[in-house]
Amino acid sequence: MANDTALLLIDIQMAFAHRDQADAARSCPEAEQNIATLLTAFREKDLPVFHIWHNSTESSSPFRPGEPGNPVQTFAAPEPGEIVITKQVNSAFIGTDLEEQLRERGITRLIITGATANHCTETTTRTAGNLGFDAIYVSDGVWAYGQRGPDGVVHSPQAVHSMTLANLDGEFARVMTAEEVLREIRA
Amino acid sequence: MANDTALLLIDIQMAFAHRDQADAARSCPEAEQNIATLLTAFREKDLPVFHIWHNSTESSSPFRPGEPGNPVQTFAAPEPGEIVITKQVNSAFIGTDLEEQLRERGITRLIITGATANHCTETTTRTAGNLGFDAIYVSDGVWAYGQRGPDGVVHSPQAVHSMTLANLDGEFARVMTAEEVLREIRA
Repeated sequence: MANDTALLLIDIQMAFAHRDQADAARSCPEAEQNIATLLTAFREKDLPVFHIWHNSTESSSPFRPGEPGNPVQTFAAPEPGEIVITKQVNSAFIGTDLEEQLRERGITRLIITGATANHCTETTTRTAGNLGFDAIYVSDGVWAYGQRGPDGVVHSPQAVHSMTLANLDGEFARVMTAEEVLREIRA
Repeated sequence: MANDTALLLIDIQMAFAHRDQADAARSCPEAEQNIATLLTAFREKDLPVFHIWHNSTESSSPFRPGEPGNPVQTFAAPEPGEIVITKQVNSAFIGTDLEEQLRERGITRLIITGATANHCTETTTRTAGNLGFDAIYVSDGVWAYGQRGPDGVVHSPQAVHSMTLANLDGEFARVMTAEEVLREIRA
């Protein structure tokens, strides 16, 4: 993988750490470690890294600027030269200049990680694929929480996570593990 | 509901009828009837109707122009004055002038129906919500097929459909039944 490949870290902010500390059940407890490993590998190879942060405009959201949930988690903090983009909706491509910044740099392949698997990360991946990027969704570099649907069905974090992989793979993105991505970076 | 509300029919093309005729298991067998009822109600009230059709560029796709799967299904055929928009990816907002056409007409609320529940219809709904439209996803005006994910898990059509409702509701859209929408139109 060369300079045409960027790592995207989506919404790795304190609000999720707080949710985990409050014992919310989630999938993929190893996601943060895998993201940290990918981040180190990208930095070693001097490949582009994009940090996407959610600045909610909703008054009750822990992601609102100024709230303790807004700051980035320490392990995912940007280093000089890395790009930070803030967004206000799920897709990192809407209301931002992300597409422009990627095209300017000739980036065509995106390694997508972050949270949550099914909301911001999945939406950004759907948009990326539809915009013509070679989107790679890291199956163990994302995590999901459980949810109850309007039909009353309760979906476990693992079920939510698994359905996102099925919805994305081959239609919007290639689904790969962090280890598979690392092997390509180091090749 | 007034002129600020449009009905969207997404990808109701022959390829899906052929898939159903080949006995593919799917969710929501009543979807087409519900869509037809909504279409009649919108026409009676002279409310805007947008037909979105998929013109695939993939050589093996039944949705490719010229293929027998490309034409619209008869029950969903447009009438004069209704807008037809063709797309080449899942989101009806990417590579089209759909957003511009909606904004020009002052349309702020979208009643979204079509297929498949989890691919084109869900992606269009995610984009619509993120663009600031009041997106209403018709839970029994969409349908899904089963799928096997890259993790080997087999998801039934009902499970796929149900997860889409859970992913969208309250985050990107309001999920309503066709009957609930009809009640608002007729109010």
